[in-house]
Amino acid sequence: MSLRLLRVDLGRGEVAAFSPPEDYVRDFLGGSGLAFRMVADRDLEVDPLGPENVLMFISGLLTGTPVPASCKVSVVARSPLTGLWSESTVGGFWGYQLRRTGYDGIIIEGRAPEPVYLWVSEDGVEIRSAEQLWGLDAYRTSEALAEELGAGVQVACIGPAGENLVAFAAVMVGGHEGRAAGRTGMGAVMGSKNLKAVAVRGSRRPPVADARLVAAKRRELLPLIRDNTRLLADFGTSGAVQTVEHSGDLPIRNWYGGSWPEGAARICGQRIVEEMFEGHYACYGCPIRCGKEVRVRVGEHAGEVAHGPEYETCAAFGSMVLNDDVDVLVAANDLANRLGLDTISAGAAVAFAMECSEKGLIGDRVPWGDGEAILGLLKDMAYRRGLGDLLAGGTRRAAAAIGGAAAEYAVETKGLEYAYHDPRAFTSMALVYATANRGACHLEGLTYFVEGGAFPGERIGLRNDWDRASSDDKAELAKRMQDYMGVFNALGLCKFLMRGRVGPEDLAVWVRGVTGREMDAAELMRTGERMFNLKRLVNVRLGLSRKDDALPPRLLSHPRPSGGAAGVLPHIGRMLHEYYRIRGWSEEGLPLPETLERLGLAGIRS
Amino acid sequence: MSLRLLRVDLGRGEVAAFSPPEDYVRDFLGGSGLAFRMVADRDLEVDPLGPENVLMFISGLLTGTPVPASCKVSVVARSPLTGLWSESTVGGFWGYQLRRTGYDGIIIEGRAPEPVYLWVSEDGVEIRSAEQLWGLDAYRTSEALAEELGAGVQVACIGPAGENLVAFAAVMVGGHEGRAAGRTGMGAVMGSKNLKAVAVRGSRRPPVADARLVAAKRRELLPLIRDNTRLLADFGTSGAVQTVEHSGDLPIRNWYGGSWPEGAARICGQRIVEEMFEGHYACYGCPIRCGKEVRVRVGEHAGEVAHGPEYETCAAFGSMVLNDDVDVLVAANDLANRLGLDTISAGAAVAFAMECSEKGLIGDRVPWGDGEAILGLLKDMAYRRGLGDLLAGGTRRAAAAIGGAAAEYAVETKGLEYAYHDPRAFTSMALVYATANRGACHLEGLTYFVEGGAFPGERIGLRNDWDRASSDDKAELAKRMQDYMGVFNALGLCKFLMRGRVGPEDLAVWVRGVTGREMDAAELMRTGERMFNLKRLVNVRLGLSRKDDALPPRLLSHPRPSGGAAGVLPHIGRMLHEYYRIRGWSEEGLPLPETLERLGLAGIRS
Repeated sequence: MSLRLLRVDLGRGEVAAFSPPEDYVRDFLGGSGLAFRMVADRDLEVDPLGPENVLMFISGLLTGTPVPASCKVSVVARSPLTGLWSESTVGGFWGYQLRRTGYDGIIIEGRAPEPVYLWVSEDGVEIRSAEQLWGLDAYRTSEALAEELGAGVQVACIGPAGENLVAFAAVMVGGHEGRAAGRTGMGAVMGSKNLKAVAVRGSRRPPVADARLVAAKRRELLPLIRDNTRLLADFGTSGAVQTVEHSGDLPIRNWYGGSWPEGAARICGQRIVEEMFEGHYACYGCPIRCGKEVRVRVGEHAGEVAHGPEYETCAAFGSMVLNDDVDVLVAANDLANRLGLDTISAGAAVAFAMECSEKGLIGDRVPWGDGEAILGLLKDMAYRRGLGDLLAGGTRRAAAAIGGAAAEYAVETKGLEYAYHDPRAFTSMALVYATANRGACHLEGLTYFVEGGAFPGERIGLRNDWDRASSDDKAELAKRMQDYMGVFNALGLCKFLMRGRVGPEDLAVWVRGVTGREMDAAELMRTGERMFNLKRLVNVRLGLSRKDDALPPRLLSHPRPSGGAAGVLPHIGRMLHEYYRIRGWSEEGLPLPETLERLGLAGIRS
Repeated sequence: MSLRLLRVDLGRGEVAAFSPPEDYVRDFLGGSGLAFRMVADRDLEVDPLGPENVLMFISGLLTGTPVPASCKVSVVARSPLTGLWSESTVGGFWGYQLRRTGYDGIIIEGRAPEPVYLWVSEDGVEIRSAEQLWGLDAYRTSEALAEELGAGVQVACIGPAGENLVAFAAVMVGGHEGRAAGRTGMGAVMGSKNLKAVAVRGSRRPPVADARLVAAKRRELLPLIRDNTRLLADFGTSGAVQTVEHSGDLPIRNWYGGSWPEGAARICGQRIVEEMFEGHYACYGCPIRCGKEVRVRVGEHAGEVAHGPEYETCAAFGSMVLNDDVDVLVAANDLANRLGLDTISAGAAVAFAMECSEKGLIGDRVPWGDGEAILGLLKDMAYRRGLGDLLAGGTRRAAAAIGGAAAEYAVETKGLEYAYHDPRAFTSMALVYATANRGACHLEGLTYFVEGGAFPGERIGLRNDWDRASSDDKAELAKRMQDYMGVFNALGLCKFLMRGRVGPEDLAVWVRGVTGREMDAAELMRTGERMFNLKRLVNVRLGLSRKDDALPPRLLSHPRPSGGAAGVLPHIGRMLHEYYRIRGWSEEGLPLPETLERLGLAGIRS
């Protein structure tokens, strides 16, 4: 299958279309799989915020097709937060519109001398001045470009956080719908290139080889998907807050607390929908429609309609910082989206600051649960003022700058702040976080779907019943789920399809249906394994090894004192040992030659 | 009890005698306990190799008395290897002679403009030129000063390693008997002060309040001590090599290997004694006489009589580097002693270099087991040549300089290379190494004495039977033994007394006998706890916290593949949690206010 990509050199103002080698697509599909294959050919030792970094927007192989929830695009660059080559994924309609232009991805190099935006259509790319957009928040930027370019245009942009090179600035998509390629600072890379936005619109239809096959599988699975995602449909991801709290999975007070049922009841999706609901939102092609629109009730944007906070954000600006004021939570989410901040890292930074303040490590007064402090710090991070400036490099750097015990409060791996599913609640997640290529990312493994019963282990050849407190047998689970999760990013599919029990066999059918290529589940999983190893390999070239696969002090040696995961500490040393063996990696965490050989990666530059 | 200390300012050439406050001695006894109490009053943020660092030689409270093995002196300074305030202990006769001068310790500040040595007698101190000594090895230095100052003089000195500021240079005592304050680079601190040696001789008798009480307890315990230390008496500490290998406690091939019985048989004390024995050696007042004199058979010092390698050194220049040539081992030990290198860190550095070489991380060819490479690297470290210069800062710095996976091969905690008892063989040692104040030190805990049955747990109020592979119940063991071990250093006693089952009650009797002070075992243990917390507290002021209490990758996640400890990995996260709770420390590893209050440390500067 041949893809068509655009290469844009912002420094030289040059644009070209090209097709990546077909074996790249065959072996790595699209999305971040294909992107990393291309990254592997490059000089990796670049300044993440220098013009020599590259910023790739690559659609999945199935993006924008009739496959359900085929809405995703991968954003790939060297991360200014982790220093590693990284990916971030975003839904909405941007990927769909990109593919309608006839291009499957955009590779952006160099740095524009002045702020610009890209306008991509079926005619190719224009580099246009963004002087009038620079300084606008993400909603306004999106609106201004919709006005300028007309209906149907989709905008990926940065807010002030990206402009000011905040290390965890997001790439925002969908205006006030608040879709984000949130993690690892892709927005800062965009800002470093003086690139305010990428607007896309087209009218073509992404090719589908066997529409009937795709539709048949879709028909078969839609009822299952719908039946198992009612909570998401009704209340969004934040509908899970109370359940998650009950199981001990919701991080509380910068990962220190054990339980917080009364707080969880006040910041959950059910309450948000009851009190502030304005409408549902679904990404392109999605039968789940987990997005919620709400009306902001406090702060400078009170009265406006905004994206309802996701589960991760309820943790970030709720339980992590002991804020149980749902209005502050909604306003903080809205503000972070406008500013273009990753809510996970931003919430972690606020919680970190609160704990440092409590322990007297910083002079600033940042009380737990203080709404003004939360909203104020978000702006200060985006505009790099005072304490906010210190936090804007991420908690690892902030802890190093503060010194002493501050590192105890920076809950991160490889520089990325933990997502808000607790590895002490589902021990397999300790492995997932420790070994995830982009740092402490939940989405690279999502094994709590399996341990918690939401996705049957049998769909990936494992058992269905798990002891989530035990450290036994978790390596194989982590490995298989990581392999499987990579496939979603390469195909451009939302992982919530798993809630509908969608397994590798199903995805293989859709790949066949869309591309015409014969592929079975085993080959798809092997492709996932190949991609995971490739991402590891790329960063091994930068010095990554076992030493970086570490749990932070708080998760290694501090058990939750109460609640559904009380007393559990994962035995990370033992799990890692099993994991490396199963992966075919050396004890140092380096893929062994025979593993590379087996996966067809032996020829990759190393 | 009043002690008399000397203060020497090498920069100004000033000397003064003074007595530390009596409550310092009451609460912290002598040795490193008293030293750290004095350190706590100082500005801690000094360059370890700058004139503002202080170097203390403090005798134990019982040093030089009729108490058995009361031979020890503590050397205390801020370590150039770990960056922490640290202590190192040495036996021989130096401490005895120091006390015979009527002084109980020497505190050295500043930096001499030219090489000097100190000559301490009953008349006080002279600062004398050491131009003629600079560049000599430790044996020759000792001999030259004995010639200059006459019979009975005892010399503590540095070799070329200390002169050249090798971060793990030792302070050597006893000439070719090779006693060393080996760990954490006290020799480099001495070198940084242009201080080549400290010579001592006196004729006074350290005061003993109740000689009959001391003698009675001595009579009671001597048979027990002698009966249980026959192996030490016959073959020295290296007589244990084969037993230790069998139990999986002997580190092999930079902590990677599982078993090496054929090698252990070739480098054990039994063979050394059989083939090279020249004589026994006992430190002052010691009924055990674990020291052995041997004749070197290869290398530039072939034919000379030297100190026989200790157990740790058999591991360092034997199993760690896969050298089974006993002649090379003996020559390497002799060379390291002459150069004034800590054999533990030096062996770790060689093993680290061998593994980096094997894995292609460095260009140098350093084959496993290569005798020439071992001897050559020792000299290159001491004289800071090539790869030796890179290693001379310790393995942590070398790994950082090499980058990439090199950190996987640096087996250290807090910058100190691990001593050679495997925490996978006795899991309590994982806690001991992780939390030891001076880094990965075995002597601060020695819990394998208890887990292995050599010292009955009941002597410190615990049980006698332990499952050495389990991670259960090890926190209390580690805590109590750490408290107890601190007492030995403060009293100036050799820890091998424990082989004779000597417990806190016995030591309390001797304290009463020597000082006349009423003290029971409980108070002695509480004093040990106070000292351990004080040492922690001092380094907490420098930023030490939980994050530093970490196992290196190799010990965290690599189980021994075979042998007596095959498959075991300590659950360090869980053990640390229990340990902090038992210690009365915060989850961050900081002593809690109520703990400081309980131990009478609340008034200490923090």
